[in-house]
Amino acid sequence: MVKIGYLGPRGTFTKLAVDTAFNGVDTQSFTTIPECIDAVFHDQIDVGVVPLENAIEGTVQLTVDYLVHQARLPIVAEIVVPIQQHLLVSPDFSKDLTEVSNVYSHSHAIAQCHQFLHLHMPEAAFNFTSSTGKAAEIVSNSEQEIAAIGNTLAAKEYGLKIYKENIHDYPNNHTRFLVLAKDKNIAAIKHEAETEKTSMLITLPSDYAGALHQVLAAFAWRKMNLSKIESRPMKTGLGNYFFIVDVNQPYDEVLFPGVKAELEALGCNVTILGTYPVYQMDL
Amino acid sequence: MVKIGYLGPRGTFTKLAVDTAFNGVDTQSFTTIPECIDAVFHDQIDVGVVPLENAIEGTVQLTVDYLVHQARLPIVAEIVVPIQQHLLVSPDFSKDLTEVSNVYSHSHAIAQCHQFLHLHMPEAAFNFTSSTGKAAEIVSNSEQEIAAIGNTLAAKEYGLKIYKENIHDYPNNHTRFLVLAKDKNIAAIKHEAETEKTSMLITLPSDYAGALHQVLAAFAWRKMNLSKIESRPMKTGLGNYFFIVDVNQPYDEVLFPGVKAELEALGCNVTILGTYPVYQMDL
Repeated sequence: MVKIGYLGPRGTFTKLAVDTAFNGVDTQSFTTIPECIDAVFHDQIDVGVVPLENAIEGTVQLTVDYLVHQARLPIVAEIVVPIQQHLLVSPDFSKDLTEVSNVYSHSHAIAQCHQFLHLHMPEAAFNFTSSTGKAAEIVSNSEQEIAAIGNTLAAKEYGLKIYKENIHDYPNNHTRFLVLAKDKNIAAIKHEAETEKTSMLITLPSDYAGALHQVLAAFAWRKMNLSKIESRPMKTGLGNYFFIVDVNQPYDEVLFPGVKAELEALGCNVTILGTYPVYQMDL
Repeated sequence: MVKIGYLGPRGTFTKLAVDTAFNGVDTQSFTTIPECIDAVFHDQIDVGVVPLENAIEGTVQLTVDYLVHQARLPIVAEIVVPIQQHLLVSPDFSKDLTEVSNVYSHSHAIAQCHQFLHLHMPEAAFNFTSSTGKAAEIVSNSEQEIAAIGNTLAAKEYGLKIYKENIHDYPNNHTRFLVLAKDKNIAAIKHEAETEKTSMLITLPSDYAGALHQVLAAFAWRKMNLSKIESRPMKTGLGNYFFIVDVNQPYDEVLFPGVKAELEALGCNVTILGTYPVYQMDL
């Protein structure tokens, strides 16, 4: 059976993404993003799922930096999951929202629900936990009038009641996960992919005006659309940058080698990080 | 006295940045990034300091999104602080590293020190806390052979000994903070600024091949150098993006209005988020 590693613990958004995307797999929880990536790299597991964007549990930067600097693994898929935060209480809670004295969650989850909390629970005290799952555990073990912020999986795992659904500030917010594997055919996702993307890593020879503009020209005149561009400092010091570019089409043997050759002629380094389907999940 | 708010609690990198950058100010800790930004917006404090990049305590995305969507405040300065993580133990600890049974820290800090921990403490168990300050507190209250990962301020605040300095994986890693204030002259930083930057928010009219390339052309032919470019999804749904662009020069009345007029002619929306000095801190 395919073994899938993910950034844990129980009840996190990463686990929710894994449960939603894959059927009948053996899963293993890892405590940090580097540990999960390393496990795929050293063949201890077949597939790794790590947060890439907007995630509560990990930083974009850590995933990208670790992939770029430490363990180059092909990206074989992207999973996009809507961010839905709920207010969770113990099953026998029957009081009013204003009677909740304390709210527990990961600091980022509390921040994501700032407007709701500010408006509806101005008197409640906020307590930060190491994960949303941990917050749900605290509420499940308490007799007090307290609440947690977390997703449906956290509610299910810890037997909590959803008091109020979707209390997050932005309705169209999504979180993205990368699926990493040496063999791109190993992980069967139980949905249809909506689009395909190609991610590239481009390092510029030096910081000079217009270098990025020249780089993008190579894509523009081929009518290759970019859905994401992000500069990140190299770890060699300030002032050196690399770029992560997502191209909205699968790799092919004409356009991509053409772009690569042109950019290399400009003195850039170009690495294809992966060409892969994007799966849009509904929870 | 000027009142400066920051993302707390005690012993965080944000507090370290505030202590390093400012002299003789009244500080107030906030529990979330939106709370800190709101406090400046509603004139409860004069200045807010929030993490922007590579920070442990907050996400880039949250700061940028909140500034863009909820509370437009001018950026008046950027503070750059090197990331230095240390292994902290109680003052009377005199054993070997391999005898440490448990390490406590924020999950991102543990991940930032992955290589060191993997190599030198492969047997230790890792425990996530809500902040590096909280981890230091746990170690200061314990009689066990345990350690925390945190910065010098966490060591000082909780009376811990630095067992091993600089255990983070990347030597040239930095974290960035934004200083937000309605009055740009209010906050006096006790260092010389190294450079000046201008941050712009640009929204494209629609997703089409080469739009970004056209946008960058407006900067390139004026020889305006960009030190950062990042696309972020709009909260109106998938497929709509805005860009945050950092230009390596202060605002002026010729080049910037020229860029703005050209971009608006292309159908873009352009907002100047701030033009401000960048302060490079040594710890």
